[in-house]
Amino acid sequence: MSTYTNISLAARPNPGPITPDLFKVEYKSIPQAGPGQVLVKQTYMSLDPAMIGWMSPDQESYVPPVEIGEVMRSAGIGEIVESNHPDFAVGDRVRGMLGWREYLVSGGEGLTKLPTNLNEEMALAVFALPGMTATQGLYGFGDPKKGETIVVSGAAGSVGSIVGQLAKADGLNVIGVAGDDEKCDWIRDELGFDAAINYKTDDIPARLREYAPNGVDIYFENTGGAIQQPVFDQMNTHGRIIVCGMIADYTSDTPSAGPNWIPLIKKRITIRGFAMPDHFQDVQKLTEKLTPYVINGKIRYRTHVLEGLESAIDGLNLFFTGGNRGKLIVKL
Amino acid sequence: MSTYTNISLAARPNPGPITPDLFKVEYKSIPQAGPGQVLVKQTYMSLDPAMIGWMSPDQESYVPPVEIGEVMRSAGIGEIVESNHPDFAVGDRVRGMLGWREYLVSGGEGLTKLPTNLNEEMALAVFALPGMTATQGLYGFGDPKKGETIVVSGAAGSVGSIVGQLAKADGLNVIGVAGDDEKCDWIRDELGFDAAINYKTDDIPARLREYAPNGVDIYFENTGGAIQQPVFDQMNTHGRIIVCGMIADYTSDTPSAGPNWIPLIKKRITIRGFAMPDHFQDVQKLTEKLTPYVINGKIRYRTHVLEGLESAIDGLNLFFTGGNRGKLIVKL
Repeated sequence: MSTYTNISLAARPNPGPITPDLFKVEYKSIPQAGPGQVLVKQTYMSLDPAMIGWMSPDQESYVPPVEIGEVMRSAGIGEIVESNHPDFAVGDRVRGMLGWREYLVSGGEGLTKLPTNLNEEMALAVFALPGMTATQGLYGFGDPKKGETIVVSGAAGSVGSIVGQLAKADGLNVIGVAGDDEKCDWIRDELGFDAAINYKTDDIPARLREYAPNGVDIYFENTGGAIQQPVFDQMNTHGRIIVCGMIADYTSDTPSAGPNWIPLIKKRITIRGFAMPDHFQDVQKLTEKLTPYVINGKIRYRTHVLEGLESAIDGLNLFFTGGNRGKLIVKL
Repeated sequence: MSTYTNISLAARPNPGPITPDLFKVEYKSIPQAGPGQVLVKQTYMSLDPAMIGWMSPDQESYVPPVEIGEVMRSAGIGEIVESNHPDFAVGDRVRGMLGWREYLVSGGEGLTKLPTNLNEEMALAVFALPGMTATQGLYGFGDPKKGETIVVSGAAGSVGSIVGQLAKADGLNVIGVAGDDEKCDWIRDELGFDAAINYKTDDIPARLREYAPNGVDIYFENTGGAIQQPVFDQMNTHGRIIVCGMIADYTSDTPSAGPNWIPLIKKRITIRGFAMPDHFQDVQKLTEKLTPYVINGKIRYRTHVLEGLESAIDGLNLFFTGGNRGKLIVKL
């Protein structure tokens, strides 16, 4: 095969589902590595909720949007198939922001070798954006203490599932919120969360009172939506709210209202919004924090693997529907 | 005169104005100081927005409510008129939580002598709850930096007026929000704020764009209400929001909606609610921080003095109407 698939952004999304016309799919000739370059064949590509933001023209976002006509942005893992670069040999596995394409030529900038003992799926599901985000959010801003209660929304998601398991390993009472019973069963029965709430079918305030009889100390917010106000109402004095994602609102024309601020005073609550590009310089430190939990078997994960690059397009909609079962990965 | 006026709480307030039936006014015989005691004649009493909270039965509040039948809580200044206590002499001026009464007998607990160079009005308007609150909020949580822009709501109030002047002295661009033109004139022309917005008559978003062309770095929130969402919309990346008061919502049956949380992520904003009882152990440090600004003439204040203890009852409504002109003090 002398051609490869390349997908670039063709238009900005409107509120609502991601549609194929937002992308341009092209079949290009596989290039050759020039002097000092490598040719990378991507093998696994990560799909992340942040991509919705990267596609949008919002000037207030924390990273520049993908330009129209530019290859769509993504993290991934690939194999060196040609090398004229002293640091990389044919067969090396590398990771980096590879983009939505099967092959790319690179001068090596931004490529790092994958440790030989790390498989690709764990590399993308744990030791990548999800694990770094979970670790930074929980320990950088959450100040978790044994015996406290944490509520994690989007708890079956790539970030939420790690947050909850870290907190459980630290001795907290961990309540996960998810959108269907299968996910609730998974976080409770497989990951060891103390309790799970199905926000679509459960009586949220009643379940919160039952599972958090002493109130909520930490609220790790990945979704927004129906769960937000009820959890906010149960926050304890000196509670910490970490706002990591609001996927329930990303596709709506008019953002939903947030909670009134009076309880912030009465309970001296801190709400902290964050995004990982502010903390990329801390990745080494975050990895060192996360690694012992993984080595000690405290962090389980599952992957939802899509086959073929073009499956990424419709795959993004799984973030809105909650239809994915684990970390979304595209196998190329 | 052998009797004095004593006002105790008779009933919990409902949403809406403070009414006389919430209090019981009694005329009692002036007691005598027993062994180890002092008799204090209160001369100046502070009225503070926090009193509305103290009257309410809210179990979530940061200080216990005043019990029904108990003397209403307040800070004040008095004079020692009898003393059997080695630390206090007749004629000494003392401050403490004296309550809504003209006389009280005390064993000296919680009474501190007023420095001889400090007049009573400045003691209550600056070196008391307002100044401590302003200093803790701005420096404890605001991280103000020269050249940044701060918006202060309730800017003509006892806390807001000090926050704005501290920020101005530190070289920030200071925008105050108040509810009438006289207050706007005062904070701009007398206190030196860079700009003032009348939230009742001005086009708030337009004025914010004009006065904060580079966006808002710090939002010191004393009121809630109409100003909140427009300021929130103008926050800069890494902005800090300090929530000190929400007086606009204290009398409403249904709290107004707060801003949606998506911008907290995009702009990595921190919202911090606080209340001074958490920081009473830092009063000495806060006083040391505030004093140089006062000595250097950076902090001006005005007092709105009511005459006679019973004027306190209706005086509380001035917090809701915004009818006060300066720190509310009852002269006894």
